[in-house]
Amino acid sequence: MQTSKDKPLILISNDDGITAPGIRALVEVMKEIGDVLVVAPDKPQSAMGHAITINQPLRLTKVEQFPGVEAYQCTGTPVDCVKLAIDKLLNRKPDLMVSGINHGSNSSINVIYSGTMSAAVEAAIDGMPAIGFSLCDYSWDANFEVVKPFIRRIALEYLRNGLPYGTLLNVNLPVPEGGIKGIKVCRQAVAKWKEDFDERLDPFNRKYYWMTGRFVNMDKGEDTDEWALAQGYVSVVPTQFDLTDHSRISALNTWDLHE
Amino acid sequence: MQTSKDKPLILISNDDGITAPGIRALVEVMKEIGDVLVVAPDKPQSAMGHAITINQPLRLTKVEQFPGVEAYQCTGTPVDCVKLAIDKLLNRKPDLMVSGINHGSNSSINVIYSGTMSAAVEAAIDGMPAIGFSLCDYSWDANFEVVKPFIRRIALEYLRNGLPYGTLLNVNLPVPEGGIKGIKVCRQAVAKWKEDFDERLDPFNRKYYWMTGRFVNMDKGEDTDEWALAQGYVSVVPTQFDLTDHSRISALNTWDLHE
Repeated sequence: MQTSKDKPLILISNDDGITAPGIRALVEVMKEIGDVLVVAPDKPQSAMGHAITINQPLRLTKVEQFPGVEAYQCTGTPVDCVKLAIDKLLNRKPDLMVSGINHGSNSSINVIYSGTMSAAVEAAIDGMPAIGFSLCDYSWDANFEVVKPFIRRIALEYLRNGLPYGTLLNVNLPVPEGGIKGIKVCRQAVAKWKEDFDERLDPFNRKYYWMTGRFVNMDKGEDTDEWALAQGYVSVVPTQFDLTDHSRISALNTWDLHE
Repeated sequence: MQTSKDKPLILISNDDGITAPGIRALVEVMKEIGDVLVVAPDKPQSAMGHAITINQPLRLTKVEQFPGVEAYQCTGTPVDCVKLAIDKLLNRKPDLMVSGINHGSNSSINVIYSGTMSAAVEAAIDGMPAIGFSLCDYSWDANFEVVKPFIRRIALEYLRNGLPYGTLLNVNLPVPEGGIKGIKVCRQAVAKWKEDFDERLDPFNRKYYWMTGRFVNMDKGEDTDEWALAQGYVSVVPTQFDLTDHSRISALNTWDLHE
């Protein structure tokens, strides 16, 4: 891709696929800020987490999807898209990578299942400033217009301030009836999904299961993303990919681990 | 599954599939410690990260794979296996969940791509003590015998000492020429993969790509898992699923995020 030196270079991906309205809205915001390259899955890849494709080959196809913007669809996962963009399409590291806008929340524990956030995490591992954006509305025809100013502001502030290696942002955008109240910096709420598989019989009398579940928020803290979203604020969680629980190293050193 | 109250109940999964030699070795160790239930993928699911299956139904089939041990193969990902076991096969929470033994290392940044570790993370989210075990040898006929005593000791110490909600263990087992020197509690090394896709042409002259890459360790710390493994020690990393980078919340609060 040809890039200018005057404008920031911005890589965009998502997990709902390149035809999703959410990524279109994100492209519209980012092309006002910089030079944009889109590399996104050719089909929905929700809940793919940090999956990568190692047992099959990948394909990359140039598409005319967004007016005036270079865009490719990829047969792989969101993380595959970021890796291919870095290795095959870009001659320099982007100044920003943004993922989304996801159709549905990626707050609290959802961050770990999310293809949208995993694409941003992959970019951050490679050293790019990165943000995942998610709208708390699953519908395909959700209203992305009202959240565009918040996305623009967070992206510009990230470009202006920067963050050290090891941190990216998880941004969730609520759709409150009275309009968004503002932006809150938060921590991830402690929550989980209580699974409840829907058991059915196929026409040959064999059981199969659909995954369903119920979201359980175990954390009433007013500094959490769940709290902020419920109050009508955009939540911004600084997110890391060092999974070490440093606080437990000394306790583990008291265990009897030696022969 | 029928369970006794006298022995710990142990759930086992992996990402290499239920026929892999690594899970067989893990079952052999765990059946000496407790009552075992195996629920593992029916095919290799390496590098699936924390993917879950939401757009397709899942199947679960009882198999006679391990003498005297109840075992099921599942059509889904490692995380799906844990969710199905909890909801459909178990009448109480296991005392321990173990995943592996993975054929290949899951140290440092590999934790984030690993299906083996994601199965253990899912169990920990649900509140079980959980450990992912990985052998630093990719070969199918790797020697798992020599690492069995280390696996047994770490599992027994975890059952004896416990850990608070929010922490699990990532255990990697080296195969040094002179034998394993002992066990070290470590942090995850700062590392990444530098991707290098292998570009080919199919018989119809269209490009396709195989993912390959080079592991880059950017962290020479002697308290890291990479260091311990290189020195011939088993690495034990306390691992968390709170991805909040708490250290950056105050810095983000200085950004101009308000209209």
